[in-house]
Amino acid sequence: MQIAVVTFDGFNELDSFIASAVINRARPAGVRAYITTPTPSVTSMSGVEVVGQRGLDFITEADVVLIGSGIRTRDIVADPALFGALPLDPSRQLIGAQCSGALVLAKLGLLGSMPVCTDTTSRPFVEDCGVRVLDTPFHTEGPIATAGGCLASLYLGAWAISRTVGEEAARAAVDYVAPVGEKDETVERVFAAIRSAQPVAR
Amino acid sequence: MQIAVVTFDGFNELDSFIASAVINRARPAGVRAYITTPTPSVTSMSGVEVVGQRGLDFITEADVVLIGSGIRTRDIVADPALFGALPLDPSRQLIGAQCSGALVLAKLGLLGSMPVCTDTTSRPFVEDCGVRVLDTPFHTEGPIATAGGCLASLYLGAWAISRTVGEEAARAAVDYVAPVGEKDETVERVFAAIRSAQPVAR
Repeated sequence: MQIAVVTFDGFNELDSFIASAVINRARPAGVRAYITTPTPSVTSMSGVEVVGQRGLDFITEADVVLIGSGIRTRDIVADPALFGALPLDPSRQLIGAQCSGALVLAKLGLLGSMPVCTDTTSRPFVEDCGVRVLDTPFHTEGPIATAGGCLASLYLGAWAISRTVGEEAARAAVDYVAPVGEKDETVERVFAAIRSAQPVAR
Repeated sequence: MQIAVVTFDGFNELDSFIASAVINRARPAGVRAYITTPTPSVTSMSGVEVVGQRGLDFITEADVVLIGSGIRTRDIVADPALFGALPLDPSRQLIGAQCSGALVLAKLGLLGSMPVCTDTTSRPFVEDCGVRVLDTPFHTEGPIATAGGCLASLYLGAWAISRTVGEEAARAAVDYVAPVGEKDETVERVFAAIRSAQPVAR
């Protein structure tokens, strides 16, 4: 299973790298994440230049697409050339969004009546699209998941592993990356957040 | 205040980027982290190429030096050219180590009788240096701190902010990056781990 972690210029390192790193801990189980960029390299919000592992054309091959977050998401959704290069297909892919990535899903019309999680800064822009924003870190319905707050990218990564190669592999990956002495409680917290993220009444 | 996040080939993305990203959230308070590399670029354990923001010569200028972790730390401490380019000075710098970074501090003879935190894989190699390894995620004595388990890099980053520009700025940075709906409990968990990391009897 191949996972595209879509990463734009101005990206937040926590959002792209926590998800990709925890997923790559589950490589022995048969899933792999790739930093997927629109240009050969992208520069983070803190000025770190990262060479993309895959281009946006990889999105059509990926089993899972996670949209990272950053400080330029509003520019991205306003750029027809860039935005048109995101051929997401929830009928055959799992799709996740981190923080401002929810704005991408909203603008692509993928959310229907589904509410989302996003960060405080992105919230008004997502709500302007007519999408309801939850006060929780993680929400999923069907093939789509959203996470809010940089460190919730751990939940998005664990969800992607669970849905592709199973919860056992996801628990092992989270256990591996968790702080020493806090492994069990970290695994429980992550999977409690994922389990509680059931469709809500609306 | 300038913080060098020393990042070698084969590095673990969680270790370098969680620490640097949370520190850079505190930039308005006057602290900034730089990915600091021995070569113009380094490639992570998952194959992601990252361009360094500073070279190892920056270490002598830095107020804080955090040694990241990765799959090649044992090669690094065995390489006189590379190892000699780490002029750490605990008399005027704060020094932190993530996971296998503890092996670097041990080989540099910086630990004295101080025990450390490290990851399970690195543990026997650190113990072979005569250093006691704790079963906790974070430990600090004087100017030195160590963290074990990738996600404990959040504790190392928060410690670096606290010790340079103050706990208020560190709490605000952790609050910002925490999952939505879990901000208070995340801040409390991080600072409980740092507070409990007092010198232990030996």
